[in-house]
Amino acid sequence: MKFCSNCGNDVVVAIPSGDHLPRYVCEACGAIHYQNPRLIVGCLAEWQDQILLCRRAIDPRKGFWTLPAGFMENHETMEQAAIRETAEEALAEVETLEPLALVSVPHISQVHFMFRARLQNGRHGAGAESLETRLMHERDIPWAEIAFPSVRYALERFCEDRRKGTSGFHISTWEQTAVR
Amino acid sequence: MKFCSNCGNDVVVAIPSGDHLPRYVCEACGAIHYQNPRLIVGCLAEWQDQILLCRRAIDPRKGFWTLPAGFMENHETMEQAAIRETAEEALAEVETLEPLALVSVPHISQVHFMFRARLQNGRHGAGAESLETRLMHERDIPWAEIAFPSVRYALERFCEDRRKGTSGFHISTWEQTAVR
Repeated sequence: MKFCSNCGNDVVVAIPSGDHLPRYVCEACGAIHYQNPRLIVGCLAEWQDQILLCRRAIDPRKGFWTLPAGFMENHETMEQAAIRETAEEALAEVETLEPLALVSVPHISQVHFMFRARLQNGRHGAGAESLETRLMHERDIPWAEIAFPSVRYALERFCEDRRKGTSGFHISTWEQTAVR
Repeated sequence: MKFCSNCGNDVVVAIPSGDHLPRYVCEACGAIHYQNPRLIVGCLAEWQDQILLCRRAIDPRKGFWTLPAGFMENHETMEQAAIRETAEEALAEVETLEPLALVSVPHISQVHFMFRARLQNGRHGAGAESLETRLMHERDIPWAEIAFPSVRYALERFCEDRRKGTSGFHISTWEQTAVR
Protein backbone atom coordinates (compact mmCIF):
# COMPACT_ATOMS: atom_id res chain seq x y z
CA MET A 1 0.00 0.00 0.00
CA LYS A 2 1.50 3.32 -1.12
CA PHE A 3 -1.47 5.66 -1.46
CA CYS A 4 -4.54 6.44 0.63
CA SER A 5 -7.63 4.82 -0.94
CA ASN A 6 -9.75 7.57 0.59
CA CYS A 7 -7.91 10.73 -0.54
CA GLY A 8 -5.08 9.59 -2.84
CA ASN A 9 -2.22 11.07 -0.79
CA ASP A 10 0.80 9.06 0.36
CA VAL A 11 0.38 6.70 3.30
CA VAL A 12 2.99 6.16 5.99
CA VAL A 13 3.48 3.24 8.35
CA ALA A 14 2.86 4.36 11.93
CA ILE A 15 1.32 3.15 15.20
CA PRO A 16 -1.92 5.14 15.62
CA SER A 17 -2.61 6.65 19.02
CA GLY A 18 -4.21 4.05 21.31
CA ASP A 19 -3.11 1.20 19.02
CA HIS A 20 -0.21 -1.21 19.47
CA LEU A 21 0.64 -2.23 15.89
CA PRO A 22 1.98 -0.34 12.87
CA ARG A 23 -0.74 0.47 10.30
CA TYR A 24 -0.92 2.22 6.97
CA VAL A 25 -1.97 5.72 7.97
CA CYS A 26 -2.81 8.76 5.84
CA GLU A 27 -1.45 11.93 7.38
CA ALA A 28 -3.54 14.04 4.97
CA CYS A 29 -7.06 12.77 5.76
CA GLY A 30 -6.37 10.72 8.91
CA ALA A 31 -7.63 7.42 7.50
CA ILE A 32 -6.19 4.24 9.05
CA HIS A 33 -6.07 1.32 6.63
CA TYR A 34 -6.35 -1.90 8.64
CA GLN A 35 -5.36 -5.19 7.07
CA ASN A 36 -6.72 -8.41 8.53
CA PRO A 37 -6.64 -12.15 7.81
CA ARG A 38 -8.89 -13.56 5.10
CA LEU A 39 -11.15 -16.58 5.36
CA ILE A 40 -10.94 -19.46 2.89
CA VAL A 41 -14.10 -21.57 3.17
CA GLY A 42 -14.92 -24.89 1.52
CA CYS A 43 -16.48 -28.32 1.70
CA LEU A 44 -15.54 -31.92 2.12
CA ALA A 45 -18.51 -33.32 0.20
CA GLU A 46 -19.41 -36.98 0.56
CA TRP A 47 -21.37 -39.22 -1.79
CA GLN A 48 -21.82 -42.92 -1.09
CA ASP A 49 -18.65 -43.17 1.02
CA GLN A 50 -16.65 -41.24 -1.54
CA ILE A 51 -15.10 -37.78 -1.17
CA LEU A 52 -15.24 -35.10 -3.85
CA LEU A 53 -11.77 -33.82 -4.77
CA CYS A 54 -10.67 -31.23 -7.36
CA ARG A 55 -7.39 -31.08 -9.23
CA ARG A 56 -6.20 -27.48 -9.34
CA ALA A 57 -6.06 -25.72 -12.71
CA ILE A 58 -4.34 -22.66 -11.22
CA ASP A 59 -1.34 -21.75 -9.13
CA PRO A 60 -0.41 -22.17 -6.35
CA ARG A 61 -0.10 -25.96 -6.47
CA LYS A 62 -1.49 -26.37 -9.98
CA GLY A 63 -2.10 -30.05 -10.76
CA PHE A 64 -2.43 -31.01 -7.10
CA TRP A 65 -5.64 -32.20 -5.43
CA THR A 66 -7.73 -30.07 -3.15
CA LEU A 67 -11.19 -29.66 -1.67
CA PRO A 68 -13.45 -27.05 -3.30
CA ALA A 69 -12.79 -23.85 -1.31
CA GLY A 70 -12.05 -20.18 -1.79
CA PHE A 71 -12.17 -16.66 -0.41
CA MET A 72 -15.30 -15.82 1.54
CA GLU A 73 -17.02 -12.75 0.05
CA ASN A 74 -18.49 -9.77 1.87
CA HIS A 75 -22.15 -10.20 2.88
CA GLU A 76 -21.99 -13.99 2.82
CA THR A 77 -22.43 -16.49 5.62
CA MET A 78 -19.81 -19.21 6.04
CA GLU A 79 -22.25 -21.81 4.67
CA GLN A 80 -23.10 -19.67 1.64
CA ALA A 81 -19.41 -19.25 0.87
CA ALA A 82 -18.79 -23.01 1.06
CA ILE A 83 -21.82 -23.81 -1.11
CA ARG A 84 -20.84 -21.18 -3.70
CA GLU A 85 -17.22 -22.33 -3.90
CA THR A 86 -18.28 -25.95 -4.31
CA ALA A 87 -20.64 -24.95 -7.12
CA GLU A 88 -17.94 -22.86 -8.83
CA GLU A 89 -14.99 -25.23 -8.55
CA ALA A 90 -16.69 -28.62 -8.68
CA LEU A 91 -20.07 -27.82 -10.34
CA ALA A 92 -21.63 -29.65 -7.41
CA GLU A 93 -24.52 -28.96 -5.06
CA VAL A 94 -24.09 -29.71 -1.36
CA GLU A 95 -26.39 -29.83 1.65
CA THR A 96 -26.35 -30.56 5.42
CA LEU A 97 -23.17 -28.60 6.12
CA GLU A 98 -21.47 -29.22 9.47
CA PRO A 99 -18.20 -27.76 10.74
CA LEU A 100 -15.23 -30.09 10.16
CA ALA A 101 -11.94 -28.24 10.48
CA LEU A 102 -10.36 -24.84 11.02
CA VAL A 103 -6.69 -24.20 10.29
CA SER A 104 -4.93 -20.92 11.08
CA VAL A 105 -2.34 -20.05 8.43
CA PRO A 106 -0.49 -17.15 10.06
CA HIS A 107 2.39 -16.87 7.59
CA ILE A 108 -0.03 -15.82 4.85
CA SER A 109 -2.65 -14.28 7.20
CA GLN A 110 -5.41 -16.70 6.29
CA VAL A 111 -7.85 -18.95 8.12
CA HIS A 112 -9.02 -22.08 6.31
CA PHE A 113 -12.42 -23.48 7.31
CA MET A 114 -13.92 -26.71 5.94
CA PHE A 115 -17.42 -28.07 6.33
CA ARG A 116 -18.41 -31.68 5.94
CA ALA A 117 -21.36 -31.84 3.55
CA ARG A 118 -23.43 -34.24 1.48
CA LEU A 119 -23.47 -34.07 -2.29
CA GLN A 120 -27.12 -33.60 -3.29
CA ASN A 121 -26.80 -36.01 -6.20
CA GLY A 122 -23.79 -37.72 -7.72
CA ARG A 123 -23.16 -34.88 -10.15
CA HIS A 124 -19.89 -32.90 -10.29
CA GLY A 125 -17.49 -31.54 -12.88
CA ALA A 126 -14.52 -29.28 -13.40
CA GLY A 127 -15.21 -25.58 -12.87
CA ALA A 128 -12.91 -22.89 -14.28
CA GLU A 129 -10.29 -23.37 -11.53
CA SER A 130 -10.23 -27.18 -11.72
CA LEU A 131 -8.59 -29.53 -14.23
CA GLU A 132 -10.85 -32.38 -13.14
CA THR A 133 -13.04 -33.48 -10.25
CA ARG A 134 -13.34 -36.99 -8.88
CA LEU A 135 -15.24 -38.92 -6.22
CA MET A 136 -12.69 -41.00 -4.33
CA HIS A 137 -12.78 -43.75 -1.77
CA GLU A 138 -10.41 -43.19 1.13
CA ARG A 139 -8.01 -45.83 -0.19
CA ASP A 140 -7.68 -43.88 -3.46
CA ILE A 141 -6.86 -40.46 -1.98
CA PRO A 142 -3.52 -39.33 -3.50
CA TRP A 143 -1.96 -38.25 -0.19
CA ALA A 144 1.33 -37.27 -1.82
CA GLU A 145 -0.48 -34.98 -4.25
CA ILE A 146 -2.66 -32.99 -1.86
CA ALA A 147 -2.29 -29.27 -2.54
CA PHE A 148 -2.15 -27.82 0.99
CA PRO A 149 -1.53 -29.01 4.57
CA SER A 150 -4.91 -27.57 5.61
CA VAL A 151 -6.68 -29.75 3.03
CA ARG A 152 -4.74 -32.80 4.17
CA TYR A 153 -5.67 -32.00 7.77
CA ALA A 154 -9.38 -31.84 6.93
CA LEU A 155 -9.21 -35.07 4.93
CA GLU A 156 -7.32 -36.91 7.69
CA ARG A 157 -9.69 -35.78 10.45
CA PHE A 158 -12.72 -36.68 8.33
CA CYS A 159 -11.42 -40.18 7.60
CA GLU A 160 -10.44 -40.75 11.24
CA ASP A 161 -13.85 -39.57 12.46
CA ARG A 162 -15.66 -41.78 9.97
CA ARG A 163 -13.71 -44.85 11.10
CA LYS A 164 -14.62 -44.04 14.72
CA GLY A 165 -18.24 -43.20 13.91
CA THR A 166 -17.82 -39.65 15.25
CA SER A 167 -17.99 -36.23 13.62
CA GLY A 168 -15.93 -33.71 15.56
CA PHE A 169 -14.76 -30.20 14.84
CA HIS A 170 -10.99 -29.94 14.66
CA ILE A 171 -8.70 -26.95 14.92
CA SER A 172 -5.03 -26.61 14.11
CA THR A 173 -2.31 -24.31 12.75
CA TRP A 174 -0.43 -24.72 9.50
CA GLU A 175 3.09 -23.91 10.58
CA GLN A 176 5.21 -22.32 7.89
CA THR A 177 7.83 -25.01 8.43
CA ALA A 178 5.36 -27.84 7.84
CA VAL A 179 6.70 -30.42 5.44
CA ARG A 180 4.44 -30.64 2.42
CA MET B 1 -12.52 3.38 -1.77
CA LYS B 2 -11.85 6.18 -4.24
CA PHE B 3 -8.16 5.87 -5.12
CA CYS B 4 -5.84 2.98 -5.97
CA SER B 5 -3.63 2.20 -2.97
CA ASN B 6 -0.98 0.92 -5.37
CA CYS B 7 -0.63 3.84 -7.84
CA GLY B 8 -2.88 6.65 -6.52
CA ASN B 9 -5.12 6.88 -9.60
CA ASP B 10 -8.93 6.70 -9.45
CA VAL B 11 -10.56 3.31 -8.96
CA VAL B 12 -13.74 2.20 -10.71
CA VAL B 13 -16.22 -0.49 -9.73
CA ALA B 14 -16.18 -3.26 -12.35
CA ILE B 15 -16.39 -7.04 -12.66
CA PRO B 16 -12.88 -8.23 -13.56
CA SER B 17 -12.54 -10.76 -16.38
CA GLY B 18 -13.11 -14.28 -15.02
CA ASP B 19 -14.76 -12.93 -11.87
CA HIS B 20 -18.47 -12.76 -10.97
CA LEU B 21 -18.63 -9.84 -8.52
CA PRO B 22 -17.96 -6.11 -8.83
CA ARG B 23 -14.60 -5.07 -7.36
CA TYR B 24 -12.66 -1.87 -6.95
CA VAL B 25 -10.40 -1.93 -10.00
CA CYS B 26 -7.64 0.46 -11.06
CA GLU B 27 -7.66 1.01 -14.81
CA ALA B 28 -4.26 2.70 -14.63
CA CYS B 29 -2.17 -0.07 -13.02
CA GLY B 30 -4.62 -3.00 -13.25
CA ALA B 31 -4.75 -3.65 -9.49
CA ILE B 32 -7.91 -5.33 -8.18
CA HIS B 33 -8.73 -4.38 -4.58
CA TYR B 34 -10.62 -7.28 -3.00
CA GLN B 35 -12.58 -6.72 0.18
CA ASN B 36 -13.40 -9.68 2.39
CA PRO B 37 -15.06 -10.42 5.73
CA ARG B 38 -13.09 -9.81 8.92
CA LEU B 39 -12.72 -12.18 11.85
CA ILE B 40 -13.58 -11.13 15.40
CA VAL B 41 -12.05 -13.63 17.84
CA GLY B 42 -12.51 -13.88 21.59
CA CYS B 43 -12.91 -15.99 24.71
CA LEU B 44 -15.52 -17.17 27.10
CA ALA B 45 -13.19 -17.56 30.07
CA GLU B 46 -14.30 -19.59 33.08
CA TRP B 47 -13.07 -19.44 36.64
CA GLN B 48 -14.66 -21.55 39.40
CA ASP B 49 -18.02 -21.79 37.58
CA GLN B 50 -18.03 -18.10 36.80
CA ILE B 51 -17.76 -16.42 33.40
CA LEU B 52 -15.61 -13.38 32.69
CA LEU B 53 -17.62 -10.51 31.18
CA CYS B 54 -16.55 -7.00 30.17
CA ARG B 55 -18.67 -3.86 30.12
CA ARG B 56 -17.91 -1.92 26.93
CA ALA B 57 -16.24 1.48 27.27
CA ILE B 58 -16.61 2.22 23.54
CA ASP B 59 -19.25 2.30 20.85
CA PRO B 60 -21.01 0.37 19.48
CA ARG B 61 -23.06 -0.73 22.50
CA LYS B 62 -21.10 1.26 25.06
CA GLY B 63 -22.17 0.27 28.60
CA PHE B 64 -23.37 -3.18 27.53
CA TRP B 65 -21.74 -6.45 28.50
CA THR B 66 -19.61 -8.52 26.17
CA LEU B 67 -16.98 -11.24 26.04
CA PRO B 68 -13.40 -10.09 25.44
CA ALA B 69 -12.97 -10.23 21.64
CA GLY B 70 -11.70 -8.17 18.76
CA PHE B 71 -10.30 -8.09 15.24
CA MET B 72 -7.83 -10.84 14.44
CA GLU B 73 -4.53 -9.37 13.23
CA ASN B 74 -2.38 -10.47 10.31
CA HIS B 75 0.18 -13.19 11.15
CA GLU B 76 -1.77 -14.42 14.19
CA THR B 77 -3.39 -17.77 14.84
CA MET B 78 -7.00 -17.83 16.05
CA GLU B 79 -5.83 -18.83 19.54
CA GLN B 80 -3.23 -16.04 19.66
CA ALA B 81 -5.89 -13.50 18.70
CA ALA B 82 -8.25 -14.70 21.43
CA ILE B 83 -5.52 -14.70 24.08
CA ARG B 84 -4.34 -11.21 23.05
CA GLU B 85 -7.84 -9.73 23.04
CA THR B 86 -8.56 -11.20 26.47
CA ALA B 87 -5.33 -9.72 27.81
CA GLU B 88 -6.10 -6.31 26.27
CA GLU B 89 -9.76 -5.96 27.20
CA ALA B 90 -9.92 -7.89 30.47
CA LEU B 91 -6.27 -7.89 31.63
CA ALA B 92 -6.69 -11.65 32.03
CA GLU B 93 -4.63 -14.66 31.06
CA VAL B 94 -6.38 -17.69 29.59
CA GLU B 95 -5.39 -21.25 28.73
CA THR B 96 -6.83 -24.52 27.35
CA LEU B 97 -8.73 -22.86 24.49
CA GLU B 98 -11.39 -24.95 22.75
CA PRO B 99 -13.77 -23.87 19.96
CA LEU B 100 -17.18 -22.81 21.31
CA ALA B 101 -19.13 -20.83 18.72
CA LEU B 102 -18.95 -19.29 15.27
CA VAL B 103 -21.49 -16.71 14.11
CA SER B 104 -21.60 -15.32 10.56
CA VAL B 105 -22.59 -11.65 10.53
CA PRO B 106 -23.20 -11.03 6.82
CA HIS B 107 -24.75 -7.58 7.08
CA ILE B 108 -21.45 -6.18 8.37
CA SER B 109 -19.22 -8.76 6.65
CA GLN B 110 -17.82 -10.22 9.84
CA VAL B 111 -17.38 -13.66 11.36
CA HIS B 112 -17.40 -13.89 15.16
CA PHE B 113 -15.54 -16.82 16.71
CA MET B 114 -15.46 -17.59 20.45
CA PHE B 115 -13.31 -20.07 22.32
CA ARG B 116 -14.10 -21.53 25.70
CA ALA B 117 -11.06 -21.07 27.93
CA ARG B 118 -9.90 -21.28 31.53
CA LEU B 119 -8.71 -18.21 33.38
CA GLN B 120 -5.16 -18.98 34.55
CA ASN B 121 -5.77 -17.37 37.93
CA GLY B 122 -8.67 -15.33 39.26
CA ARG B 123 -7.15 -12.05 38.07
CA HIS B 124 -8.88 -9.67 35.66
CA GLY B 125 -9.48 -5.96 35.25
CA ALA B 126 -10.72 -3.31 32.87
CA GLY B 127 -8.52 -2.72 29.81
CA ALA B 128 -8.73 0.46 27.75
CA GLU B 129 -11.91 -0.65 25.95
CA SER B 130 -13.74 -1.84 29.09
CA LEU B 131 -15.51 0.12 31.84
CA GLU B 132 -15.32 -2.85 34.19
CA THR B 133 -14.85 -6.61 34.16
CA ARG B 134 -16.65 -9.10 36.34
CA LEU B 135 -16.77 -12.85 37.02
CA MET B 136 -20.42 -13.88 36.98
CA HIS B 137 -22.36 -16.97 37.85
CA GLU B 138 -24.90 -17.95 35.18
CA ARG B 139 -27.78 -16.66 37.34
CA ASP B 140 -26.19 -13.19 37.40
CA ILE B 141 -25.66 -12.76 33.65
CA PRO B 142 -27.45 -9.54 32.60
CA TRP B 143 -29.18 -11.06 29.55
CA ALA B 144 -30.99 -7.83 28.68
CA GLU B 145 -27.69 -5.94 28.65
CA ILE B 146 -25.61 -8.18 26.41
CA ALA B 147 -23.94 -6.12 23.68
CA PHE B 148 -24.35 -8.36 20.62
CA PRO B 149 -26.47 -11.37 19.51
CA SER B 150 -23.26 -13.31 18.76
CA VAL B 151 -22.11 -12.86 22.36
CA ARG B 152 -25.50 -13.94 23.68
CA TYR B 153 -25.36 -16.98 21.39
CA ALA B 154 -21.97 -18.03 22.76
CA LEU B 155 -23.10 -17.51 26.36
CA GLU B 156 -26.33 -19.48 25.85
CA ARG B 157 -24.60 -22.41 24.15
CA PHE B 158 -21.91 -22.48 26.85
CA CYS B 159 -24.46 -22.53 29.68
CA GLU B 160 -26.58 -25.19 27.94
CA ASP B 161 -23.53 -27.36 27.31
CA ARG B 162 -22.37 -27.03 30.91
CA ARG B 163 -25.77 -28.12 32.23
CA LYS B 164 -25.67 -31.15 29.93
CA GLY B 165 -22.02 -31.94 30.72
CA THR B 166 -21.05 -31.55 27.04
CA SER B 167 -18.82 -29.10 25.20
CA GLY B 168 -19.88 -28.75 21.58
CA PHE B 169 -18.96 -26.37 18.81
CA HIS B 170 -21.92 -24.33 17.63
CA ILE B 171 -22.45 -22.38 14.44
CA SER B 172 -25.10 -19.83 13.55
CA THR B 173 -25.87 -16.63 11.66
CA TRP B 174 -26.70 -13.26 13.18
CA GLU B 175 -29.57 -12.15 10.95
CA GLN B 176 -29.78 -8.40 10.51
CA THR B 177 -33.42 -8.55 11.66
CA ALA B 178 -32.52 -10.27 14.94
CA VAL B 179 -34.18 -8.61 17.92
CA ARG B 180 -31.58 -7.34 20.35
